[in-house]
Amino acid sequence: MTNISIIGAGSFGTALAIVLATSRHQVTLWSRTEAQADALRKKRVNERYLPSHPIPESIQITSYLPDVVASDVLLFVAPSAGLRSISGQLAELGAIPSSTILVSAVKGIEYGSGLRMSEIVSGFFPSNPIAVLSGPNHAEEVARGNPTASVLASRSEAVSRQLQHAISTNRLRLYTNEDVIGVELGGALKNVFALAAGISDGLGLGDNSKAALATRALAELARLGTALGGNRDTFQGLSGLGDLMVTCFGRQSRNRNVGERLGRGESLEDIVDSLSMVAEGIPTTRSAQECALRLSVDTPIIDVVHSVLYEGVAPAEAMARLMARDLRAE
Amino acid sequence: MTNISIIGAGSFGTALAIVLATSRHQVTLWSRTEAQADALRKKRVNERYLPSHPIPESIQITSYLPDVVASDVLLFVAPSAGLRSISGQLAELGAIPSSTILVSAVKGIEYGSGLRMSEIVSGFFPSNPIAVLSGPNHAEEVARGNPTASVLASRSEAVSRQLQHAISTNRLRLYTNEDVIGVELGGALKNVFALAAGISDGLGLGDNSKAALATRALAELARLGTALGGNRDTFQGLSGLGDLMVTCFGRQSRNRNVGERLGRGESLEDIVDSLSMVAEGIPTTRSAQECALRLSVDTPIIDVVHSVLYEGVAPAEAMARLMARDLRAE
Repeated sequence: MTNISIIGAGSFGTALAIVLATSRHQVTLWSRTEAQADALRKKRVNERYLPSHPIPESIQITSYLPDVVASDVLLFVAPSAGLRSISGQLAELGAIPSSTILVSAVKGIEYGSGLRMSEIVSGFFPSNPIAVLSGPNHAEEVARGNPTASVLASRSEAVSRQLQHAISTNRLRLYTNEDVIGVELGGALKNVFALAAGISDGLGLGDNSKAALATRALAELARLGTALGGNRDTFQGLSGLGDLMVTCFGRQSRNRNVGERLGRGESLEDIVDSLSMVAEGIPTTRSAQECALRLSVDTPIIDVVHSVLYEGVAPAEAMARLMARDLRAE
Repeated sequence: MTNISIIGAGSFGTALAIVLATSRHQVTLWSRTEAQADALRKKRVNERYLPSHPIPESIQITSYLPDVVASDVLLFVAPSAGLRSISGQLAELGAIPSSTILVSAVKGIEYGSGLRMSEIVSGFFPSNPIAVLSGPNHAEEVARGNPTASVLASRSEAVSRQLQHAISTNRLRLYTNEDVIGVELGGALKNVFALAAGISDGLGLGDNSKAALATRALAELARLGTALGGNRDTFQGLSGLGDLMVTCFGRQSRNRNVGERLGRGESLEDIVDSLSMVAEGIPTTRSAQECALRLSVDTPIIDVVHSVLYEGVAPAEAMARLMARDLRAE
């Protein structure tokens, strides 16, 4: 029995809470607003993000951060834009034991600093063990109990094994990996490639095109990811290729959907206004391009997505630019 | 202007004929039966396999093999089971110039001999240049003119470059590769993995599971493919990963559909009886397992598909077997 607190009551945070609560853990689900926490407590369902899955009574729901300090595991599942602030607030409490394992499932790269999400957390908690959770994990399917595999990465094998045994269930199988950088970058960057895949879908280019795009995306992920310190093999695994495939080809992928709407001609502003959840690919595109420029890595797909999101280039023109390359060897 | 003859008037053969005819090539489409050739000539559409795409008048349609002997390029797009017979008939004509480039787009491995399709062809035409065409290419999308990329592999770079310039169009971009073995095996083996992906779909396991399965499939493809002489990098490219993705995740994938019906409980016999086209994954599963056994390569996914197709194991039990592995590092 482990005390696990989940920081963030979006779709994935809620799904993890539901799955982990069935494994005899004491689970606390923290929501940023008391209004949401109150609604979750009363309705025992996350109507906005995961309406079909009841939240077991055993899960404690709170918006009060001190409620989570006594946890063995703190699992961050917040939007990337809020992670620095939440981590700071937690650190100010001064009450998190240094034995508490901090796990980031947040997907992003901080713009300006280029920091990964686990680096932001560990900046506030330098003595705590840190891990990362990432893989092909649609929240809805996790909540439904569909068999799901994911990766737990920590520089300390002891930490990842401990978490693996604590958190894994029959339906959520966790594999360990020591390459925190590679696992974390796969989760962050795949959202940018999913935007590109969605743009291709929205333009009606078909699956042949999308497969060619996604093949190049994996190469681009590995190129930028290794330049940033990740291990090449990691990008071939669940948290790289696996997550890339499900995000580029899955119907449920949020970032792919945003890309599809862009491809169909909607404006980014209208799309963002209509979203109830954050599409992390949008901010990550800026951060990823910043990293690529700094390291002089060639990232044509990221550049094309950047041109659509931030430079006013029409999706059709941007994709044509990507396709228009000389015939050559693979 | 090149004389190109396409041996096989199924969906992909017809799609290639349509696309190549728009590039000012003289295209001949050979059908196995005069009845089909006659219908194609009269209706100028392949009603059975590609009903929405008219066949340009410039394409010569025949069932008479001597009509194809004067070609610069002979493109084989027949079912794997018929390739040896057709190649033998062509060889008996004794009239194919040794300069004619023979290109195999056939997907399979011969059971018993373990030969790749291009090896069967070159067995009959040892003096002719041989190439292979393979990639993420749904026929319907190729015919529609959706942007498509594919790989032309030949041991002779001169041959693949010549073909690349002759056959590539704006909409069908061909990349060259010298690794004939790797390109050909990607095209053949991906159909077995698509059956597995379909079984997963049919059992309702969801995209998270399928992404985990497809990730392991790429590793398995590279493991068996390199043991058979392919280059590891090839499996990361369009003809490996690209084709694997579109076949495992694309709605239009024939082998994925067969797997889905198996997963839903239909018998293989009923499915095969109802198909108007060959699902090459079915025979390739036997050949692939035979190769793996001979080389002592670990191929758990191929084994699971084999157990469903040929050993009477229930799909749910077979997939459970695949999933039931100890928790471990990636």
